[in-house]
Amino acid sequence: MSEKDSMTTVMDNNAQWQAAFYRLRSNKAFELFVVGIIIFSALVIGVKTYPLPDALLKAVIVMDWAITVIFLVEIVIRFLGEPDKKRFFRSGWNIFDTLIVVVSLIPIEDSEMALIGRLVRIFRVLRMVSIIPELRMLLNSLLKAMPQLGYVLLMMFIIFYIYAAIGSTFFASVNKELWGDIAVSLLTLFRVMTFEDWTDVMYETMKEYPLSWIYYLSFIFFTAFAFLNMIIGIVVNVLEEEHQRIAKEEAEAAGEATVQDLHREILELKALIIQQAPALARSEEEVGR
Amino acid sequence: MSEKDSMTTVMDNNAQWQAAFYRLRSNKAFELFVVGIIIFSALVIGVKTYPLPDALLKAVIVMDWAITVIFLVEIVIRFLGEPDKKRFFRSGWNIFDTLIVVVSLIPIEDSEMALIGRLVRIFRVLRMVSIIPELRMLLNSLLKAMPQLGYVLLMMFIIFYIYAAIGSTFFASVNKELWGDIAVSLLTLFRVMTFEDWTDVMYETMKEYPLSWIYYLSFIFFTAFAFLNMIIGIVVNVLEEEHQRIAKEEAEAAGEATVQDLHREILELKALIIQQAPALARSEEEVGR
Amino acid sequence: MSEKDSMTTVMDNNAQWQAAFYRLRSNKAFELFVVGIIIFSALVIGVKTYPLPDALLKAVIVMDWAITVIFLVEIVIRFLGEPDKKRFFRSGWNIFDTLIVVVSLIPIEDSEMALIGRLVRIFRVLRMVSIIPELRMLLNSLLKAMPQLGYVLLMMFIIFYIYAAIGSTFFASVNKELWGDIAVSLLTLFRVMTFEDWTDVMYETMKEYPLSWIYYLSFIFFTAFAFLNMIIGIVVNVLEEEHQRIAKEEAEAAGEATVQDLHREILELKALIIQQAPALARSEEEVGR
Amino acid sequence: MSEKDSMTTVMDNNAQWQAAFYRLRSNKAFELFVVGIIIFSALVIGVKTYPLPDALLKAVIVMDWAITVIFLVEIVIRFLGEPDKKRFFRSGWNIFDTLIVVVSLIPIEDSEMALIGRLVRIFRVLRMVSIIPELRMLLNSLLKAMPQLGYVLLMMFIIFYIYAAIGSTFFASVNKELWGDIAVSLLTLFRVMTFEDWTDVMYETMKEYPLSWIYYLSFIFFTAFAFLNMIIGIVVNVLEEEHQRIAKEEAEAAGEATVQDLHREILELKALIIQQAPALARSEEEVGR
Repeated sequence: MSEKDSMTTVMDNNAQWQAAFYRLRSNKAFELFVVGIIIFSALVIGVKTYPLPDALLKAVIVMDWAITVIFLVEIVIRFLGEPDKKRFFRSGWNIFDTLIVVVSLIPIEDSEMALIGRLVRIFRVLRMVSIIPELRMLLNSLLKAMPQLGYVLLMMFIIFYIYAAIGSTFFASVNKELWGDIAVSLLTLFRVMTFEDWTDVMYETMKEYPLSWIYYLSFIFFTAFAFLNMIIGIVVNVLEEEHQRIAKEEAEAAGEATVQDLHREILELKALIIQQAPALARSEEEVGR
Repeated sequence: MSEKDSMTTVMDNNAQWQAAFYRLRSNKAFELFVVGIIIFSALVIGVKTYPLPDALLKAVIVMDWAITVIFLVEIVIRFLGEPDKKRFFRSGWNIFDTLIVVVSLIPIEDSEMALIGRLVRIFRVLRMVSIIPELRMLLNSLLKAMPQLGYVLLMMFIIFYIYAAIGSTFFASVNKELWGDIAVSLLTLFRVMTFEDWTDVMYETMKEYPLSWIYYLSFIFFTAFAFLNMIIGIVVNVLEEEHQRIAKEEAEAAGEATVQDLHREILELKALIIQQAPALARSEEEVGR
Repeated sequence: MSEKDSMTTVMDNNAQWQAAFYRLRSNKAFELFVVGIIIFSALVIGVKTYPLPDALLKAVIVMDWAITVIFLVEIVIRFLGEPDKKRFFRSGWNIFDTLIVVVSLIPIEDSEMALIGRLVRIFRVLRMVSIIPELRMLLNSLLKAMPQLGYVLLMMFIIFYIYAAIGSTFFASVNKELWGDIAVSLLTLFRVMTFEDWTDVMYETMKEYPLSWIYYLSFIFFTAFAFLNMIIGIVVNVLEEEHQRIAKEEAEAAGEATVQDLHREILELKALIIQQAPALARSEEEVGR
Repeated sequence: MSEKDSMTTVMDNNAQWQAAFYRLRSNKAFELFVVGIIIFSALVIGVKTYPLPDALLKAVIVMDWAITVIFLVEIVIRFLGEPDKKRFFRSGWNIFDTLIVVVSLIPIEDSEMALIGRLVRIFRVLRMVSIIPELRMLLNSLLKAMPQLGYVLLMMFIIFYIYAAIGSTFFASVNKELWGDIAVSLLTLFRVMTFEDWTDVMYETMKEYPLSWIYYLSFIFFTAFAFLNMIIGIVVNVLEEEHQRIAKEEAEAAGEATVQDLHREILELKALIIQQAPALARSEEEVGR
């Protein structure tokens, strides 16, 4: 056998394997099995938060490794099943899945690193989103709505920052823990925005600055109004998209005429009548002669 | 009389009885009477929560039995009035009504069972929903909206679960009662989502983990955003249904022409003109001759 | 002068007076003056809540009487200016205004009655709504939205009642003040719905009934969902009305054609062409001869 | 050189300078630089809220002056670059920017004035809004929505005022700090509206007035309902504007026919056919002869 032939055979073999893996990963049962493993891994994470007898603790550690191995195998299958290897790592979810598995594989003894290991195991639950298409779509739609909120969030941050600067300038002497510097002031204002014991904060400063209720009420008014505007912005945006989608669907619906179709028809009619007009005119002339 | 004749007579009798019961249960006065009894049973339940003198307590027990008997009679009437006996138990509400009455009939002495007996009596108030069609429709529309929320609720549960796992991993040492295991962590996070003294929870963990405010703020942000999306999803859905309903109504409205009707009319016009064209052409030709 | 003539003169006089009063009450300056007096009366009410020196207190009492007299004069003017005396008391707002003034006139010494007198003076502020048409419209639209909410409110009350009955059955032993009877239980549940220290209530009952979190979470879920549905119901309703209003406006807009107009035009066109058809046919025939 | 010529030269020079400054201020890099300086000034404000070593404090004061000078130069450039000097001070934002810089320039030693100086430095952050057009638009849209809310806010204030007057009349004896006069009563009611420990307020008054829960529940109901109505009002308003904008866009879309266009076309068609009718009639007559 020539070297070239053997290469071709290898490639043919590869293509066959790839197709087999592709079929496997597209299999509904395979997907359900992976979802099942993710749920199981979530349960294992939950169980680990309870005080466990030693025997169960050992079992949990074994299960943990088994889950890691299964995830590794699954990702290898998905990678081998991918026709275009380069495209595999262009998907953010594939990179996320691979990272989670790779970090899980690193043996960690150090107590600080152990925490990171536990965190990584917790984030495995997010694989649910990468596996179930509906959840992936939901997350994408959430992310897509983000940039539209950008300027409103910037505006809100400016409001927060100005109020926090004023707050830490005037109220730092009243309560160091709430208004000590601009960072804690921002946190305090977020607390006020959620109405969490905000009157305790206000009554305290009102003892020294009796007019400070203006500060709190105006802040609540501004943030509530900005928030309201944000929601309305999203709703209007969503409705507009809906409107366009419906309009497009209606236009595409087979057999249904639109106003544009009517327009075309009427123009054709007109052309027809105009075409007849000279004929008539001529017939009239001829008759008239 | 032959056996067959007697059978027919019995069946005729049955049919007559059934028709009579059907008329009775369709009677508006009968329905109002049942609604009255349900309201009365609700009042009896309310009265029982107050400390009562012995005489009144006895009266209440008698009333309780009277209500049970009336409900039993009502259900028997509704069952006998049903033309198709099998269909009766296909309605969830009929099964619910029957169960409530049957369990009320079981005499219970055991203190633990007595509580269940009291619960069943409380659930009698729900019969209001089974009797008043508007409330039944309202509940159905609530239930119909459920599956659409399914994936958003799943997404929210994933967010909750991940944060609860992180919380019980890191904060269990800070406060066992709030972050001891994943179950109490989930409850604590629900509390944070409702803004209920959430800063107390945060300030406590911030003593040990000064950066834990990121945990709380990101959690609030994610859940608020997911919740917002959920509401928008429902609103868009409801509006879409409204839109389709209105479009359908408009199309069905007698005497009102739609764009499709116009299209048909114009096509007919065209056909007419084209039909005339050869005539004209011919007339032209003839005249020309 | 005959008696009849004198009667006519009196009636003419009356009509002249009535017209004069009508002009007065329709006067913009008169309306602004009354609004000013209402604002002044609101300020007087506000001032009375502060501890006042004796001199000012006497002045306030004098002002109070002056306001009452001005209101009396104003209502008499409005009554005399009304062309149809019977219609005057058909308007709820006129009755409200008259009642407020009449009760203000009754001299009250008794300390208990004095409180009612103060209340009536407070309700004078509501006269703002009866005077400014925009506020009257706003209130009317609020009241108009009420019946649509009827069944949702009934549904919510049923949910509240069932949970309150369950709560006072099980938790009365835990905390008499929160769950003692069905009335306080309803109040406690309203508190839980507003998320006001609801976890304090829950943690207390969870000590005795560890699973009582199901009770609270399901209650919050049901009420939040019902509330959401209520809002959506109102929004859809408002949008539908808007939609109909816009559609009507568009149809009424002069010079703007609707699809219905087009339909009519096309039908006329058809009639015209059909009318010509026999003419053509005839002309064709004649030519053919 | 005549005086007139020298004048012209000066004016030409001026025009050249003005054009140069106009180019500078329209430069994207210039704008980004100013935004950078504003962010830097915000950071300086933030840093000042922390306890600083003396060296850094001096550096901060220097930076503060540097920022003021840069802002001064920037405004001078923008003023000189303005073709129409009078128009410059018609823009509220230009006046705001100038004021901020001018007040920053005044040297202040007095401790009370120093606070105002610090406040002015904080408000520099607002220059972000005056520089970034998207934020300016956002703020304008917020301000534009204000008048529409006017009557609803007035209505809400009337509700608040009446309840505050009732509250300070009856509950002042219960708790002077919460219900002492109408001002603190208004603040307490705002607190109740935000559900902030409102049950503590209610339970206190219920000890003396057991029926005062009616006061609180009706107040919550009214404000919640008014607030709901306000939101719906804004949403409907926004949607209506959207609707009109879309309708206008559709009408303006080139090549797209509207119902109005169709109407025109059909009328022209009719005119054409009617025009032909006499011709036909005549041809018919002639032929008939």
